Amino acid sequence: MSNRMPRTLHGGLEHCSVNTATLGHREPLRITVDRIARAGFGSIAPWRSEVEGCDVQAIARQIREAGLGVSGYCRSTYIPALEVAQFRANVESNRRALHDAAVLGARCFVMVVGGIPAGSRDLAGARAQVHDAVADLLHLAKAVGVPLALEPLHPVYAANRSVLNTLGQALEWCQIIDPEQSGYLGVAIDAYHCWWDPQLTACVAQAGKAKRILAFHVCDWLHDTQDVLLDRGMMGDGVIDLAGLRHLVEAAGYAGAVEVEIFSKDNWWKKDIDDVLRVCADRLQTVC
Amino acid sequence: MSNRMPRTLHGGLEHCSVNTATLGHREPLRITVDRIARAGFGSIAPWRSEVEGCDVQAIARQIREAGLGVSGYCRSTYIPALEVAQFRANVESNRRALHDAAVLGARCFVMVVGGIPAGSRDLAGARAQVHDAVADLLHLAKAVGVPLALEPLHPVYAANRSVLNTLGQALEWCQIIDPEQSGYLGVAIDAYHCWWDPQLTACVAQAGKAKRILAFHVCDWLHDTQDVLLDRGMMGDGVIDLAGLRHLVEAAGYAGAVEVEIFSKDNWWKKDIDDVLRVCADRLQTVC
Repeated sequence: MSNRMPRTLHGGLEHCSVNTATLGHREPLRITVDRIARAGFGSIAPWRSEVEGCDVQAIARQIREAGLGVSGYCRSTYIPALEVAQFRANVESNRRALHDAAVLGARCFVMVVGGIPAGSRDLAGARAQVHDAVADLLHLAKAVGVPLALEPLHPVYAANRSVLNTLGQALEWCQIIDPEQSGYLGVAIDAYHCWWDPQLTACVAQAGKAKRILAFHVCDWLHDTQDVLLDRGMMGDGVIDLAGLRHLVEAAGYAGAVEVEIFSKDNWWKKDIDDVLRVCADRLQTVC
Repeated sequence: MSNRMPRTLHGGLEHCSVNTATLGHREPLRITVDRIARAGFGSIAPWRSEVEGCDVQAIARQIREAGLGVSGYCRSTYIPALEVAQFRANVESNRRALHDAAVLGARCFVMVVGGIPAGSRDLAGARAQVHDAVADLLHLAKAVGVPLALEPLHPVYAANRSVLNTLGQALEWCQIIDPEQSGYLGVAIDAYHCWWDPQLTACVAQAGKAKRILAFHVCDWLHDTQDVLLDRGMMGDGVIDLAGLRHLVEAAGYAGAVEVEIFSKDNWWKKDIDDVLRVCADRLQTVC
């Protein structure tokens, strides 16, 4: 691969990952791991709800033995809270998850940071809480060897899911919290969340320059999205120039997995799971 | 009013406007005009669907005689198109509306610019079309004496309603298209669309410095919004620090109307219209 000829995903499923949310969490993780490996993908991104309460060492072993990498571990407990005790409990919950991420050998711990606490209008305060929590968690991230990937979420989620809403904002936080570019604080770039951003091209380049790109997630934004949370599109069915975005991300130096993450309650989550994996594989190789 | 003591809206309904969409377009404009005037507001913002096909001169006379100003005329025909002929027709439709805006004595023509044409993935191309159309329409805006107010819409609408999504992006376009700051190209700042933006404070100040703020719209973003188009909240019922935002906008030099614009199919559009106006008046004076 040279700078002038972007990596093609055709025949390159080993560079691709499946976020288990794509399959609707309809089966235990041990079955999902086997399906994803059998379908030819190189990595998986599991969720805490599938892992916690189980034997994490055993899951890690199964994933390894299936030949899969772990492109990310989803996801952080929301951080902002009205009460300090709750804030501390949220940070503590993320600590426990970071330890599991290390056992799983995850390439990053995906941080969806949380929205404005119900009953509050203090957006700046919520952002400050996240900032403090990330600075705190960064110590543990270094200690256990799992980078924190701040995932800016689409501004439609600013109230109830994430007060971190643009790549530019995430990079600014990275620069303040981790000016030495330790390698343990960066960003997850998700096409669904970022595609509309007029600053996207500049910010992706900036992220690459600072070696901050830890994950790259794809799906599509349907032209007439019915539900902003659970009606994501399959790659190729919407408005995002995914090949263009992948080229930007890879031109910026990212060489990690291209991870499919599709929340689609009324469509893809109702389809046969192996069929969904086949369509993902096909679209990754022809559209992305 | 000094720079250090922001204008209070208490007892200042004459500084407030009602966008007729707030009332659900359930009655002819002639009745709406009287209701809004009777409720004590200083201005109105009517929609083209209420005006076109009617005697625009007569509507203008009624509004004037009711003692109301026109804080804005809603709204532009969407611009981007797959075919050049359609693009031209869209621009032409906006020309006609600009003439009506002049007859109405509107303080600005509100431009919601349109999304990506169905079937296309060319976000940059759609943005370029809008840019070209605005540059073209600016000549007529000057000729008829009605400024164009570019309204950046929330990024959730980037696919199907507006490829203009942040105040920063709108200001960049203004600077390129109208570097001489003619007074005929500026922005409409709508709290619903902009509240989440990490760059908001800086961009409002920048907009004020360049004398670009032509309109200021308020409503609220509900913490758990059910429908991003038609579930806007009444001021005070959501997460936006509206008083803080108004102070920013006015500290930047804006002295025009504070316009209420609430799309609320299942709530406010079902309530008694005079009651809605009373609640708007109350919240403007106590929350904003």
